[in-house]
Amino acid sequence: MKKILIVGGVAGGATAAARLRRLSEEDEIILFERDEYISFANCGLPYYIGDVIKDRSKLLVQTVAGMSKRFNLDIRNFSEVTFIDTIGKTVEVKNQLTGKTYRETFDKLILSPGAKPITPPIPGLAEAKTILTLRNIPDTDKIKAIIESGNVKRAVVIGGGFIGVEMAENLSELGVNVTLVEKLNQVLKPLDFEMAQLVHQEINANCVNLILEDGVDHFQQQGTEVVLESGRVLEADLVILAIGVVPENGLAKSANLKCGPRGHIVTTENYETMSAENDIVNPNIFAIGDAIEVKDFVTKNKTAIALAWPANRQGRVVADFINGKTIRNAGIQGTAVAKVFNKIIASTGNNAAQLKMKKITYQVVVAHRANHAGYYRNSTNIALKLLYDPETLKILGAQAVGQDGTEKRIDVIASAMKTGATVLELQDFELCYAPPFSSAKDPVNILGYIAENIIDGIYKTVEWDEIDEIVSNGGFLLDVRTPTEVNAGVINGAVNIELDSLRDRIGEISIAKDAPIYVTCQVGQRAYLAICILKGNGFTNIYNLAGGYSTYKAAHYKLAELDFTVGECAPPKDDADKRDIDRG
Amino acid sequence: MKKILIVGGVAGGATAAARLRRLSEEDEIILFERDEYISFANCGLPYYIGDVIKDRSKLLVQTVAGMSKRFNLDIRNFSEVTFIDTIGKTVEVKNQLTGKTYRETFDKLILSPGAKPITPPIPGLAEAKTILTLRNIPDTDKIKAIIESGNVKRAVVIGGGFIGVEMAENLSELGVNVTLVEKLNQVLKPLDFEMAQLVHQEINANCVNLILEDGVDHFQQQGTEVVLESGRVLEADLVILAIGVVPENGLAKSANLKCGPRGHIVTTENYETMSAENDIVNPNIFAIGDAIEVKDFVTKNKTAIALAWPANRQGRVVADFINGKTIRNAGIQGTAVAKVFNKIIASTGNNAAQLKMKKITYQVVVAHRANHAGYYRNSTNIALKLLYDPETLKILGAQAVGQDGTEKRIDVIASAMKTGATVLELQDFELCYAPPFSSAKDPVNILGYIAENIIDGIYKTVEWDEIDEIVSNGGFLLDVRTPTEVNAGVINGAVNIELDSLRDRIGEISIAKDAPIYVTCQVGQRAYLAICILKGNGFTNIYNLAGGYSTYKAAHYKLAELDFTVGECAPPKDDADKRDIDRG
Repeated sequence: MKKILIVGGVAGGATAAARLRRLSEEDEIILFERDEYISFANCGLPYYIGDVIKDRSKLLVQTVAGMSKRFNLDIRNFSEVTFIDTIGKTVEVKNQLTGKTYRETFDKLILSPGAKPITPPIPGLAEAKTILTLRNIPDTDKIKAIIESGNVKRAVVIGGGFIGVEMAENLSELGVNVTLVEKLNQVLKPLDFEMAQLVHQEINANCVNLILEDGVDHFQQQGTEVVLESGRVLEADLVILAIGVVPENGLAKSANLKCGPRGHIVTTENYETMSAENDIVNPNIFAIGDAIEVKDFVTKNKTAIALAWPANRQGRVVADFINGKTIRNAGIQGTAVAKVFNKIIASTGNNAAQLKMKKITYQVVVAHRANHAGYYRNSTNIALKLLYDPETLKILGAQAVGQDGTEKRIDVIASAMKTGATVLELQDFELCYAPPFSSAKDPVNILGYIAENIIDGIYKTVEWDEIDEIVSNGGFLLDVRTPTEVNAGVINGAVNIELDSLRDRIGEISIAKDAPIYVTCQVGQRAYLAICILKGNGFTNIYNLAGGYSTYKAAHYKLAELDFTVGECAPPKDDADKRDIDRG
Repeated sequence: MKKILIVGGVAGGATAAARLRRLSEEDEIILFERDEYISFANCGLPYYIGDVIKDRSKLLVQTVAGMSKRFNLDIRNFSEVTFIDTIGKTVEVKNQLTGKTYRETFDKLILSPGAKPITPPIPGLAEAKTILTLRNIPDTDKIKAIIESGNVKRAVVIGGGFIGVEMAENLSELGVNVTLVEKLNQVLKPLDFEMAQLVHQEINANCVNLILEDGVDHFQQQGTEVVLESGRVLEADLVILAIGVVPENGLAKSANLKCGPRGHIVTTENYETMSAENDIVNPNIFAIGDAIEVKDFVTKNKTAIALAWPANRQGRVVADFINGKTIRNAGIQGTAVAKVFNKIIASTGNNAAQLKMKKITYQVVVAHRANHAGYYRNSTNIALKLLYDPETLKILGAQAVGQDGTEKRIDVIASAMKTGATVLELQDFELCYAPPFSSAKDPVNILGYIAENIIDGIYKTVEWDEIDEIVSNGGFLLDVRTPTEVNAGVINGAVNIELDSLRDRIGEISIAKDAPIYVTCQVGQRAYLAICILKGNGFTNIYNLAGGYSTYKAAHYKLAELDFTVGECAPPKDDADKRDIDRG
């Protein structure tokens, strides 16, 4: 019989407790939770605030009484573990209600303390009662109470990460005029800029004011005025601070457990902690969840990913390891999804910005495809971007922005990545097809097909942020769209020869056969056929503009200046052309 | 320069033509189509009949003029290829409009003739004008015209395959009283019986009369009465014959090309045809699409699969092969999806019935899981069944019936199968999670977790069709659901001890520690914890009823007798319990 203590009763900790019990009826398992609630639906909190989830009790996935009974656990809420004696194998526990402290011995200790919202010492923050962060049920209750007071007409959300964007949406759906402020030039960092621009457009189209590349300088008037670094002043009846999270590492640090550069607890592949002094492994003290450093599946570098899937997975496998099972730890891809109004944003692995920063060579594949048969009702477009290693052909990451069926494609690609599949194998994936669900060539297959074209040397790619300079330096850009499409918007300097006239008008292209030609259309598909025609006519050095004019145009989206009258809000626009046909 | 002829201008043929042109600007490519239309949306036809697709022109994905121009093809519709001289490399072509015939030589010939609906010589069929099959646009126009005459109150659809079920739905949505007749004891053969029962329930719940294990004996009264083998007479203003399809092999047979036992054209892995006499390969004559035999990805046996994905894929790769590329041919999984009213039915690989018939050993994994977080709006349950090889742990097939998010899980599993992943690897798939899309443990992960329990020897499984006999022979079946659940329905002979009382009441289980115990709950999850408790108390021989009472109950669904008054139609019922919690 082992005595196992768990610190933290949400995702990772609760999962570990349940799994530990399943693996052993006899072990003594004590779960300490500092707050009142265990195992609550933290990912659901924004939706409860937004009244999408109407019943607060639904947030409480497990109660202390119910889980204690079912899993024969000793669950102690309001109990903060304040000290670990790593040698003596004891912890000190403080009862938050009585203030009393006591010691508890352990054979194994699992730390699952999570991460907490960053609250920088911004002037004016301390005095404000309407500036809040969102981590747990009490936070949620506070925000909900302010909203239910009925005085919230304008809210400012600071931080364009997942929580910030979800809060902006949920507050907006309640009829609040929301401004979302982000220090970077884009929201949702897992996306590359041009993909994030599709989200910016969606945010504006739903009457949320978006301010990028600006941060909070200070708060004034008891927090009812947010003064940005630019000097701009935003009035706010409610401010949500969602700048990011930092690991809850106080306990770990006090126990001299090794932490990484950003404060995350360092573990072995089996989630054992180690000494900060000499890296010696603590075989009896484990750490899991948002507080730890993990291995990036793609790069094998250390990283930190505060998401529910890894926390739950780690909770299970740490219990397995403690019970003598061998566990796999291939690292974390960071697969993520968010709903932003009518769009779904999904991603897995690394994006181009991350790969560039890490100096990892990649090839980009961009597609804009219908989510299901164009002739079936409610067909919408998905913008897909995939990155692969041109040497190994392994997939490095993928992003998608669209509507119904968007995260499905990322799920398939994330699974392919985990099995080590190459980008070419995506062609062979035999996916569900009927008109309401996909096309006979699924968008995932198409990514594989495009990659094959590149790998076969049919064309090279050029990206949206390179083409303007190329053209202004005299590069020859051929746009094979119809004149009607070109009239609606075009890349400066492009020469237009409609695809269906290209064979007849090929003589008009008078540049040298080995000079670079850049070809584009709406999404890249007609450009591909144009390239085949050009190659057939002796041209040898041809580039396809990745994602075509759709990507170029999206990347150049200019933020709307909203003054919070609904009439100012443009309806969402179709983000890609459906004219291209499905003949891979 | 090669001269390439293609016979058949729909899915496979049209894809091959487009790909051939992309691979070579100079080849001469002639596409023959017997009928008027090429490349139409054959999978969309039922939805056009059902007015879901309102614009007929949307069915015409490509026109002869448009595709000829864009791809520089010589497309000849109304042109039937009637004869192949395999030695002389010529074909004979008959112009269907003029009746004239002519010859055309070829370097390469691709046959993509498709499959046609079976029309058995049923007495009374020939005289009927309102008994129709559905293959192409003219068929569709005929059915649509009859419906638009306004006299269709009652329709009979014969055959419960994909087309039959889709036609039943679409006719029903138009307000027609539909009876669906199927000779087998279930619709949609890719599903195992208990999964198909969920579909039967949905069909009934939407006021379609379903008659199983009965076939047509004859038609009378000019086809307005369908007399079944049972003697039952169904009145019908319209009858759709959707019994199945047979390959269009007339041309291939006349050219002495080898065909399989069910008439499908036999090809090499590179889609080359061969001589019926001596198996010698015709290096210049290829066949693709619904008309050919393919390799079953799972069993490597020969099979035939009339689906769009394989036809399109084969169209592409045969063009690749003809142009000197090496192609992969791992076989076809038969991944399929259908919408049936509010349910989505998806499958890939082999089902248990097929594996049994082929004497392939399998282990079953059944789960009933929420499509996304239960606390987020519109959460619904998905019934999932997965089969794997207990030796290699490779996935042999999977089926799912549910609503939103159902085919997504089959897409992930189908992709995993194609990469050769084991069932255990499903645990590691890092899938998109946010409350509107999934749970932190996705249903696909859960399938992997359940498989691990079985592989680890925590329990064995027993299936819904075995348990009654076991119990009646004195087997001990423990039902750990709550008394309330048990009162709502139970397997005869089960002993009820609620999970949360099991530890206290374990003494009541007085059988020998090594005697078999069968455990069940609503879906199998609480049974799993009960099994852990039993093991902790010394019991060693424990079975979990796969899918729990949900699967058992679904399997025992009794068809409704509908008399076509809406009042008779029960609303769809929830097919699984949500009380079980998400702690793998």
